[in-house]
Amino acid sequence: MERNERSTPVPGKEKEVDIINIKGIEDIGYVQPDSILLNCLTPEENTGCQHGLYFQDGERRVDYILTYHIKKPSSSRSNRQSSRFTDNAFTRSLRRGTARLGRAPTPQPRGDPEVASQDHSMDYHVDDKRLHREEFEGNLRDMGMELEKDEDTKTPGVGFVKIHAPWHVLCREAEFMKLKMPTKKVYEMKQSTGVGAKINTLVNKVTEPLYPNVEDNRTHNECPILYVRLVLPFLSYQVFEVLKRTKCTKCGPCNACYVLTFSCFVFQLLYEEWASYSVFYKYQPIGLVRKYFGEKIGLYFAWLGLYTQMLIPASLVGVIVFLYGCATVDDNIPSMEICHPKNNITMCPLCDRACSYWKLKEACGTARASHLFDNPATVFFSIFMALWAAMFMEHWKRRQMRLNYEWDLTGFEEEEVSDHPRAEYELRVMQKSLKKEHKTQKVLIGVTFAIVFGVILYRISTKTALHMSNNPTTRSNVRLTVKTTAAIINLVVILILDEVYGAVARWLTVLEVPKTDKSFEERLIFKTFILKFVNAFTPIIYIAFFRGRLVGRPGSYLYVFESYRMEECAHGGCLMELCIQLSITMLGKQLIQNNLFEIGIPKLKKLIRYIKSKRRSFQEEEREKKLQRYETDHFLEPFAGLTPEYMEMIIQFGFVTLFVASFPLAPLFALLNNIIEIRLDAKKFVAELRRPVAARAKDIGIWYNLLRAVAKVAVIINAFVISFTSDFIPRLVYQYMYSPDGSMHGFVNHTLSYFNVSNFQDGKEPMDPQHQVEMCRYKDYREPPWSNTPYVISKEFWAVLAARLAFVIVFQNVVMLMSDIVDWLIPDIPKDISLQIHKEKILMVELFMKEEQGKIQFIDSMMPCGGKEKRNNHAPIARSRSIPHTHSHTHANNF
Amino acid sequence: MERNERSTPVPGKEKEVDIINIKGIEDIGYVQPDSILLNCLTPEENTGCQHGLYFQDGERRVDYILTYHIKKPSSSRSNRQSSRFTDNAFTRSLRRGTARLGRAPTPQPRGDPEVASQDHSMDYHVDDKRLHREEFEGNLRDMGMELEKDEDTKTPGVGFVKIHAPWHVLCREAEFMKLKMPTKKVYEMKQSTGVGAKINTLVNKVTEPLYPNVEDNRTHNECPILYVRLVLPFLSYQVFEVLKRTKCTKCGPCNACYVLTFSCFVFQLLYEEWASYSVFYKYQPIGLVRKYFGEKIGLYFAWLGLYTQMLIPASLVGVIVFLYGCATVDDNIPSMEICHPKNNITMCPLCDRACSYWKLKEACGTARASHLFDNPATVFFSIFMALWAAMFMEHWKRRQMRLNYEWDLTGFEEEEVSDHPRAEYELRVMQKSLKKEHKTQKVLIGVTFAIVFGVILYRISTKTALHMSNNPTTRSNVRLTVKTTAAIINLVVILILDEVYGAVARWLTVLEVPKTDKSFEERLIFKTFILKFVNAFTPIIYIAFFRGRLVGRPGSYLYVFESYRMEECAHGGCLMELCIQLSITMLGKQLIQNNLFEIGIPKLKKLIRYIKSKRRSFQEEEREKKLQRYETDHFLEPFAGLTPEYMEMIIQFGFVTLFVASFPLAPLFALLNNIIEIRLDAKKFVAELRRPVAARAKDIGIWYNLLRAVAKVAVIINAFVISFTSDFIPRLVYQYMYSPDGSMHGFVNHTLSYFNVSNFQDGKEPMDPQHQVEMCRYKDYREPPWSNTPYVISKEFWAVLAARLAFVIVFQNVVMLMSDIVDWLIPDIPKDISLQIHKEKILMVELFMKEEQGKIQFIDSMMPCGGKEKRNNHAPIARSRSIPHTHSHTHANNF
Repeated sequence: MERNERSTPVPGKEKEVDIINIKGIEDIGYVQPDSILLNCLTPEENTGCQHGLYFQDGERRVDYILTYHIKKPSSSRSNRQSSRFTDNAFTRSLRRGTARLGRAPTPQPRGDPEVASQDHSMDYHVDDKRLHREEFEGNLRDMGMELEKDEDTKTPGVGFVKIHAPWHVLCREAEFMKLKMPTKKVYEMKQSTGVGAKINTLVNKVTEPLYPNVEDNRTHNECPILYVRLVLPFLSYQVFEVLKRTKCTKCGPCNACYVLTFSCFVFQLLYEEWASYSVFYKYQPIGLVRKYFGEKIGLYFAWLGLYTQMLIPASLVGVIVFLYGCATVDDNIPSMEICHPKNNITMCPLCDRACSYWKLKEACGTARASHLFDNPATVFFSIFMALWAAMFMEHWKRRQMRLNYEWDLTGFEEEEVSDHPRAEYELRVMQKSLKKEHKTQKVLIGVTFAIVFGVILYRISTKTALHMSNNPTTRSNVRLTVKTTAAIINLVVILILDEVYGAVARWLTVLEVPKTDKSFEERLIFKTFILKFVNAFTPIIYIAFFRGRLVGRPGSYLYVFESYRMEECAHGGCLMELCIQLSITMLGKQLIQNNLFEIGIPKLKKLIRYIKSKRRSFQEEEREKKLQRYETDHFLEPFAGLTPEYMEMIIQFGFVTLFVASFPLAPLFALLNNIIEIRLDAKKFVAELRRPVAARAKDIGIWYNLLRAVAKVAVIINAFVISFTSDFIPRLVYQYMYSPDGSMHGFVNHTLSYFNVSNFQDGKEPMDPQHQVEMCRYKDYREPPWSNTPYVISKEFWAVLAARLAFVIVFQNVVMLMSDIVDWLIPDIPKDISLQIHKEKILMVELFMKEEQGKIQFIDSMMPCGGKEKRNNHAPIARSRSIPHTHSHTHANNF
Repeated sequence: MERNERSTPVPGKEKEVDIINIKGIEDIGYVQPDSILLNCLTPEENTGCQHGLYFQDGERRVDYILTYHIKKPSSSRSNRQSSRFTDNAFTRSLRRGTARLGRAPTPQPRGDPEVASQDHSMDYHVDDKRLHREEFEGNLRDMGMELEKDEDTKTPGVGFVKIHAPWHVLCREAEFMKLKMPTKKVYEMKQSTGVGAKINTLVNKVTEPLYPNVEDNRTHNECPILYVRLVLPFLSYQVFEVLKRTKCTKCGPCNACYVLTFSCFVFQLLYEEWASYSVFYKYQPIGLVRKYFGEKIGLYFAWLGLYTQMLIPASLVGVIVFLYGCATVDDNIPSMEICHPKNNITMCPLCDRACSYWKLKEACGTARASHLFDNPATVFFSIFMALWAAMFMEHWKRRQMRLNYEWDLTGFEEEEVSDHPRAEYELRVMQKSLKKEHKTQKVLIGVTFAIVFGVILYRISTKTALHMSNNPTTRSNVRLTVKTTAAIINLVVILILDEVYGAVARWLTVLEVPKTDKSFEERLIFKTFILKFVNAFTPIIYIAFFRGRLVGRPGSYLYVFESYRMEECAHGGCLMELCIQLSITMLGKQLIQNNLFEIGIPKLKKLIRYIKSKRRSFQEEEREKKLQRYETDHFLEPFAGLTPEYMEMIIQFGFVTLFVASFPLAPLFALLNNIIEIRLDAKKFVAELRRPVAARAKDIGIWYNLLRAVAKVAVIINAFVISFTSDFIPRLVYQYMYSPDGSMHGFVNHTLSYFNVSNFQDGKEPMDPQHQVEMCRYKDYREPPWSNTPYVISKEFWAVLAARLAFVIVFQNVVMLMSDIVDWLIPDIPKDISLQIHKEKILMVELFMKEEQGKIQFIDSMMPCGGKEKRNNHAPIARSRSIPHTHSHTHANNF
């Protein structure tokens, strides 16, 4: 209200504004990626220093800053080229905002061949740019914006244009955006009485400390609020959030309305109640996050919060499953048999010549460890996690729906419908047809090469690791070390390739030349996701499903490159190795890549920027402390989009769900990571980055589909891990088909085939003279040497294989069915929200009825003579009137 | 326009109408299920006879008829009871329409215990009803409706109330419904030029005869039309479709608008261009269907049309697959081997004692026939059909989207959100808690009993059929006859049980007491679907997956009831029998149940009604010919909902997709049926039934989910049919694992195990003295009698089983992945529609801008003195004004 009166009256007439239909403001000399929205001050900075937050008059707030290079024409050109590729949401919305008002677009030379030929005269070009810039600024003024220039700053070579959007402009823009959803009334939910209410109060009291101290969130539902969302396509609208509050009479809407002056209050709350590790146990103040950063970022944090919350039960169950494994390790008959002191089974050597025969007893440790992750509880856990994933999806849908409602997005639809072709699209579309063949070839070669390269790298790394282990000191403990180092080497390779793949994905997408920005982003995300996912999970999938499968048998091993025997797994399945690989990759990625990189690199970059600018003007150190607000923000890292954050989380989601059958502690590790991650990201967004331009979004877009895809793949992968990697199925088959007494006794013996050492190929037999053996054993289902068909795959093998496959089918279909049932049982729209929406509809009808009446009375009072005549005419459909009343149906009855 | 002027002025003031909040008009004596919307006249009837289409003044059209019983209070009461359970869409909408306007509901005694106790005084009750009826009619008048009573008709005991809704009432109602979507502008799509346009013209010319001769459809896109949908919650709004046409200037909307007088024009078009077998090859005039019957029925026919259309490629491919089978039958090595004259394999007898040994040659015919449905092409076909189903789903989504757009439903949302509890809900909810335990038990017992009963019936029928065949004349041809008769018996059982299950489902749902009408309908549909589906497919699933599996082996057959041997399949798998069963069930269901029942029964009922009323008044025959229009409609069958139609189609969809691997001709049969079905249904809706009250719907609701579920189940069932029912996998395994030369030679021999006849149990050996054999063969993978473990399942069995299971996994996942890709590749919203929606949005913004200006000018001209002041205030957000302006945001800036 106060704010409203303070604002200056409309400068230009509200006429049709003809604005040049510019394609991107960087073309007229603005340094696009440097244009900034002002950060608020951190509480420490806030004392006194309000430099640059207002115009010279100290009254009008600076809402947005445009920066441009002055006196350095050459650099501006290169900048223009580069800025094309970093064309972001702001430019687009600006473009749209202006294009929308434009009726007669002035044909304007831009990045087409003609302009390129004119480039020889650089001076002309600069002048041309300044002219266009001035024209653009003039048009901004025509649209009602107020501007102030500041070319004389302490930052050399950079000019600033400060923009202030007056109240009435915001209102007009709000009108544009809200054609559909005029009112909103938050109803108080019916308070349940009696026991229910008491329990509710109790629950509220108990969970009290979990909520952030943000009053705003609390008062939200107390009084019916009719608030109008102001959406500015080219200004961060949250700054100007308008609240129309009513002293709620029975049904009457709004009778007092004022502007909540922003004044960095939200920022301080966020800094204290969100971006701090000390509040890690609290819910996030999502409403405030959205107010400060916009819906897109708000949705990310809401999603991250829900995911973290959902991880709590998952990690609890995971820990219980793990403890169950620990508790039952001593009752496990197969490992007892292996570790039994009287056990005297001689195993065939694990490598040619160098290795010797070994006793099964030596595998005792591995066998016991394997049991931790290979017991019936894991089967239960992987079913649980599949359902958990389905629940998570459903809960997110509901959460999103609720946020959409609370944030008033129900009427909002993404606007980008196959228009707004990206700048380079037009440029490239001609070149594309020429390069088509070459392109696809290159793409394919590139991807294949990268993947093969990665796998080979991996193989070699483990190979060498294993070779080191093939000296005579090979022991069970050493094997563990070897596995661990191999996994670490792998991790490093993954981390390096991750960066490479990120670049490759971008390069591929640029080659593809998608038409719109949205499709560019989606394709980029999709490609990056595929590549990074393959990168992270290839070694794991190799260990789970291929390692130890294609070994051959003693006397006829399979060799690669004629000399390398395929790797075998330790006794007890490859599950143990899978587990080590998983835990190291997951933890390593989280610790090194996410946290170290995420905190370290921005800090480093900021430091470098600071040092650079310092070196440039050593003497100005004193003056620098009094830098304008927009100049200090200049030194912050620009916001680069949410893709890396989401990507990190979705890969983590993969670790949590995909191989959960072999590593039930994954959810716990993810949970611990995410508790830190939330606050880390919060700190980064609040303090380390320039404040991002708010973007609206209804959902998390392609990420949801990727999550669903991961959850779907998880079901089948877990089915395979349980049936093929673990010994679960062989144990079951033995127990019910072969065991003489229905117990597990004799299982170990049953899984081992016999080999007559005289059948070793020449030169492959072990050189160790210590052992004199006739028969050695190896893990496989093959006929013994004394059968008619020695070493041929036995009937047991086929029976176990059939059982394994049957298990996969049953598991997959049962879990899919259960997921579908979960999907079907949990309604997509929370009940209270659907109720509120319904009530709002009723209110609308009531309002409409009242208004109809009010209109008649108004017309009657306005036109006492022609009242009668008009009244007959008040039927809502506009009849054959002539042009002045060319308006839409709803508006036809406004007079 | 003309119509508009003719209508009488508003009778009551447009004040807040207080209407009693009646729960259902049947409570005040109206015979709800008899209340009718007038049918149009068939062209034959149309000559001259316009009786009863208008009020006495011949000007005002009769829009709706309410009927009630007079002078027969006792029957009215029983009627009231029954009508409660047939509470349909109209009552609900009427209830809603009145309830919405109602502010102070008069407390009114109705079907609660108190009223029941008051029933002793019947006279009072009747009077009471008349009073309420009069009150209700008065309220209708207050709402602007015009009424005319006609108690003195030729139909004794029935009174009619004719209702006419004047123009302005319709307009007001339209306003209610269209709060969100004020305008609509149909854009001309950009005409492609050059070759594209020529091809387009050509295609249009070629497909010309496929389109129905309905100009309306053609002109639709020629001129931008701004039409306002009139939606009456209690009147069939299509009758009053209003078209506002514009002589399109550049962007200005509507400057001429008139009412398309309805006058049964649409009906005649429908009768000629839709409900006729002679136009079976044409597209349906869906737009007209919707105009006449409403969106819900329109969507059904659109869906049926698309389904039929999609069946064309499916049946084409199916026929090709079948022809491929026919063409390759002579090249099929297994059947060649069986039919080879030198083949002298002696098979074990098919039943105990009575049957003798037989020669494999005898199975020649069956083996050749099996090949028609059991060849590699079927595998391809079932993958094709799975993708076809996915495509169909996607296409329907797009079609639905397009219809939603064209029919202006994009803003429409189903209103039923957990309010409007059904009448009996409240009554029953108390009883429910008492009956809960009993109920669930009853439910469970009922369902189980019914299913078991069905299966037993089936078993016995086939058993007896088989026993008949066990006399010495058993031959291959006789077996076929037996199978066929068994299938026919089955069909009859299915048809009978279908009716039973329909009743059971309704009974179960009534027991459940769902809260709202919508949930009642959905639960009923779901239950009926499950039961009917199980009923139709149980015998088929039995044949496909269980028959011939649990036979045991010669010498140790499995017996049920100690004496009945489990049935075996003929040589060549059970596929042939499956195929016969499928085709007979499908064709039989379609021919008998759908067509015969659907045409026959309504005709019969109509006849009975007619005869009844004739008997009542023989002498009045002459007068009857001059019956009022609404009286002749009285003799038609009331519309019973679309559930049976959808159910029929979804069961058919099941036949088309579920077992398509064994019966590639199913799509063809479905196509032939549906071509007739469309016109049949059309005829039924147009001429045989009372015109249904139009209902709005955005989608086909639960049916879509059921379709999806069927399509999902189809994938896994087809995988199992191919791998377990057909010999596809054993053939592959033989070819790649066991065949000495990689060909199929020797396959038949490989699948047959040996049996030493001396191992027959006593009394089970065949009594036939003709044959003296030592060894007989049987189809199974078992060890021969001379092995160490005779008759034990052999390694080949496990290998084949593993291959079968692996195939299921691969097939299921590949097909699911491909379906997902299809789902992902085809956008849900057709491109042109999303473009149009986008363009409309732009238009809205333009309009809004213009209007804003217009408003300022208007205010300036109205208030020359206060203009300046007002103008500053025109910012759209309503500020602190007082009560009279208590309106929503959009309307806040209307002055």
